[in-house]
Amino acid sequence: MRSHYCGLVDETLIGQTVTLCGWADTRRDHGKLIFIDLRDHEGIVQCVAEPENEAAFKPAEGVRYEYCLRIVGKVQARPASQVNENLRSGKIEVIADSVEILNAAAPLPFMLDDSVGEDTRLRYRYLDIRRPDMQRKLRMRTRLVSALRHYLDDKGFQDIETPILTKATPEGARDYLVPSRVHPGEFFALPQSPQLFKQLLMMAGMDRYYQIARCFRDEDLRADRQPEFTQLDMEFAFVGERDVQDFVEGMIRSIFKQVVDVDLVAEFPRLTYAEAMRRYGSDKPDLRIELELVDVADAVKSCDFKVFSGPANDIGGRVAALRVPSGAELTRKQLDDYGVYVQKCGAKGLAWIRIDDLDKGREGLTSPIVKFLGDDAIKAIFAAVGAQTGDVIFFGAGPYKTVSDFLGALRLKVARDLGLVANAWRPLWIVDFPMFEYDFDAKRYVALHHPFTAPKVDDVSDLRANAAISVSRGYDMVLNGNEIGGGSIRIHRPEMQSTVFELLGIGAEEAEAKFGFLLDALKYGAPPHGGIAFGIDRIAALMAGTESIRDVIAFPKTASAQCLLTSAPSSVPEAQLQELHVRVVKPVKS
Amino acid sequence: MRSHYCGLVDETLIGQTVTLCGWADTRRDHGKLIFIDLRDHEGIVQCVAEPENEAAFKPAEGVRYEYCLRIVGKVQARPASQVNENLRSGKIEVIADSVEILNAAAPLPFMLDDSVGEDTRLRYRYLDIRRPDMQRKLRMRTRLVSALRHYLDDKGFQDIETPILTKATPEGARDYLVPSRVHPGEFFALPQSPQLFKQLLMMAGMDRYYQIARCFRDEDLRADRQPEFTQLDMEFAFVGERDVQDFVEGMIRSIFKQVVDVDLVAEFPRLTYAEAMRRYGSDKPDLRIELELVDVADAVKSCDFKVFSGPANDIGGRVAALRVPSGAELTRKQLDDYGVYVQKCGAKGLAWIRIDDLDKGREGLTSPIVKFLGDDAIKAIFAAVGAQTGDVIFFGAGPYKTVSDFLGALRLKVARDLGLVANAWRPLWIVDFPMFEYDFDAKRYVALHHPFTAPKVDDVSDLRANAAISVSRGYDMVLNGNEIGGGSIRIHRPEMQSTVFELLGIGAEEAEAKFGFLLDALKYGAPPHGGIAFGIDRIAALMAGTESIRDVIAFPKTASAQCLLTSAPSSVPEAQLQELHVRVVKPVKS
Repeated sequence: MRSHYCGLVDETLIGQTVTLCGWADTRRDHGKLIFIDLRDHEGIVQCVAEPENEAAFKPAEGVRYEYCLRIVGKVQARPASQVNENLRSGKIEVIADSVEILNAAAPLPFMLDDSVGEDTRLRYRYLDIRRPDMQRKLRMRTRLVSALRHYLDDKGFQDIETPILTKATPEGARDYLVPSRVHPGEFFALPQSPQLFKQLLMMAGMDRYYQIARCFRDEDLRADRQPEFTQLDMEFAFVGERDVQDFVEGMIRSIFKQVVDVDLVAEFPRLTYAEAMRRYGSDKPDLRIELELVDVADAVKSCDFKVFSGPANDIGGRVAALRVPSGAELTRKQLDDYGVYVQKCGAKGLAWIRIDDLDKGREGLTSPIVKFLGDDAIKAIFAAVGAQTGDVIFFGAGPYKTVSDFLGALRLKVARDLGLVANAWRPLWIVDFPMFEYDFDAKRYVALHHPFTAPKVDDVSDLRANAAISVSRGYDMVLNGNEIGGGSIRIHRPEMQSTVFELLGIGAEEAEAKFGFLLDALKYGAPPHGGIAFGIDRIAALMAGTESIRDVIAFPKTASAQCLLTSAPSSVPEAQLQELHVRVVKPVKS
Repeated sequence: MRSHYCGLVDETLIGQTVTLCGWADTRRDHGKLIFIDLRDHEGIVQCVAEPENEAAFKPAEGVRYEYCLRIVGKVQARPASQVNENLRSGKIEVIADSVEILNAAAPLPFMLDDSVGEDTRLRYRYLDIRRPDMQRKLRMRTRLVSALRHYLDDKGFQDIETPILTKATPEGARDYLVPSRVHPGEFFALPQSPQLFKQLLMMAGMDRYYQIARCFRDEDLRADRQPEFTQLDMEFAFVGERDVQDFVEGMIRSIFKQVVDVDLVAEFPRLTYAEAMRRYGSDKPDLRIELELVDVADAVKSCDFKVFSGPANDIGGRVAALRVPSGAELTRKQLDDYGVYVQKCGAKGLAWIRIDDLDKGREGLTSPIVKFLGDDAIKAIFAAVGAQTGDVIFFGAGPYKTVSDFLGALRLKVARDLGLVANAWRPLWIVDFPMFEYDFDAKRYVALHHPFTAPKVDDVSDLRANAAISVSRGYDMVLNGNEIGGGSIRIHRPEMQSTVFELLGIGAEEAEAKFGFLLDALKYGAPPHGGIAFGIDRIAALMAGTESIRDVIAFPKTASAQCLLTSAPSSVPEAQLQELHVRVVKPVKS
């Protein structure tokens, strides 16, 4: 139906007749002429209908915003005064021989260049995506996925589909369930990840596997979660952790170069989980921010201020400081707001010292706590953090994890507020995760990665003896404060798998019911294997320069897991439910 | 963990030390030596453990079938007498320096070279896939998918994911439903295809879309259906049917060449639906079979045999013959069995004439019906079909569709039984489908493709006036009797879409509730668009030379929609269902 894309018509085509299809981005009447900017995914081109040509002019008179048109016309140079250097088609215009209205458009519910609320954008997603910015973001995602596939296809990876209708998976989140019609009272679950299937594929001799896999979690949605999301899922047989890490680090480096022309650092730094928590209060530190947490327990161990000295003398406690250069710019109101903020992150309160003038001693300090600290303590703290005039120093004191978490969160917030986030790409590896984490609510150990992650120790009795301090063979790839990938070497021996289940409080019977097929499979010469999964939505959002993964998902759901476009979920006829052997039981209103 | 793949070790490596990982395919003791055939996905290599080397021999003594091993050793030429020309590694063997047992294997539930029942294969899929034949089939599928993606990426198609948790789709089959936790009493549906989303993407200006998409149908499974299946889903904006057909024909031709080195014919033949039914009794004719149906109504219009003359004089009837050369080989038993077979396809019975000797007139014929036919009728029939000695001629008489269907089915069966199926690849297009088909059970018209398929006529009143005989802009690609792809130009004008809904008996209210968002979207300048979807499972099976799509699906389900490996579906705890606001209502046993 067309000879060229609108956005690609340029001065090389001057004198030629082109046939173009697209949407009326604007229509302007200038004197006797009608100008139509015709838009397709490649961009816009200016078309002109002259009154002496009825086949062009008459239809053009009826054109409104977003009419779908076919225009045949001759390319000619624009008058020098009208040249637009910002457009590929900016040096030319198309003098229309004919304008055909392929489809009319009703007045739009919003203008495509408006900034409208996201709900409206999602309801009319087919209009929202016509915006050049959304075209760019979605096409960026396509390029990312395509580059990843080409990279992996070239390296001999097998792209293998695993089931969507499957058994309840053990990732810890809630499963979406699908009632079976054929087997009354039974349910499929949608996979939270293809974890066990990819491990089975390694046991099946497929050697290297990948899949751009849809995964599902029925969780209360935080700002940036989706009930269905996409991961690049990978698994390798006969590898150790460094094999996997080196391979995928090379892949990510190559893909960033190809897709967004970014050179990532030649070797990603490696931090242990312990060091990341210590220095950044996070297992996904944003290295674009130079601020670091500094332990000051030694400085306050013997001070009278119990808020500090208590945790400083407790083996499970932490007293840490976060020095913020230029923090003295912060107003009292901002400092108070940070106090409220860290309370949401579990802190009891936020202590701070503002150094108005280091040379003036106590006189030069503003702080709600400095009065509780002796000169020695202050001096030792300042020495530890390298305090200077103009700084604010924040303090956290309490249980190790709580302090690390809230100072880590504060580090991010303050850096954003003060513009201390470098414009850079800072990837790193986090390694040496604890094997188990104590869940204080459930009062038992849980797996920090998942129960199939191998411990560093190979010996079952060694693991039993040292479970609480054992380290796993898991690893995360972090980029600019986002965990973009996570994986591990898996357990490949049945006795180790059974032991880990047991340490997690999964009894033999439960293990058999849930994972019997895995334990079976491990019996028949399962190879050593490991892998990783990358969050495609998040990587695409980072590449597209958007905060929201919804901008790189064609048809995302809202925070209450609804599709505003199609109105899903929706009620279904009773007869359909009967066939599925279920009945709705609505919650009693209270 | 390894330096080479087992199957790729060859004489170029003689004298070198290699590190190999894989499974013990066989272990043989010959004299004092232990021979282990080590297998990975690339093939096998013979390893030899010598008693004088304890690091190899001692572990080798413990090796059993399917132990997972790492063997380090030196490559050396085999003695001439032991060379195996059929193996890439057949000229060499690896003298083991060390044999490491990475994982032991319990005695297998079946031998990998056994032919065991499919249920056992599915239950132990991780062992089944270790077989070289299954490796080949699954890797063939990977190659197919990879080739398709590369082809489409190169042509500027956007690979865009559409939701799995969506609204009930209108494809006609039963939906799988997913109860919503957040919205009590409401359900998502799993998509039967991304049909409406891909149309919306065209309206959104994405121009060219594809997706290797998972689709779901909760149907009673026939031999070769799966509850979840995979299609290559494509859509193009600003195209007519020939644009789509030419593009995808080129794609399929290129992919067959790349993946299985098959040259498909330079231009696929085109048959109208009417001609395909007339000549082959099928809308997916297998052109490898030369047999054709011949209409003989004229020959029997005025005979006394009412079984023939009735339908021959009825405008809705058909009398057709199928001449089978060499059919005289068929035994009376076989002929009777065909009678039973066609009854299953809706026939009342099967009439036939065996021509033992054409020159002997009636004496030379064997037939249950020839006594009812006059000489003129017989002569006219024989002339119409080109009868020869040694033929059997089968007859069908009755309603047009019934006769076409059962003779079409018989054509396939007889051809297979008599070896009349050529070893060839015979693709074709079926075009000019009826827009509507009368559903005698539901007593209303239904869409032959789906309700978004455009009719050939552009005018709403023309369609209304001629609905019963209207032809659509749909098309199917057929290969060797399989519909491998189907698509259409879609309706892009709201008034035409409303009219088609109405003609299908979908009232305005129902249309609004189900497809309101589509009707809305059509209002805002929707472009002309069309597309197609290909069945990946079927194409992969054809390429792999297997009858069963289960052989090209890593983890397929059984005919009762179960996963024998993971035991899905399964029951779930009551508490989980409560959260989803549903209760199981088991059917009452009768």
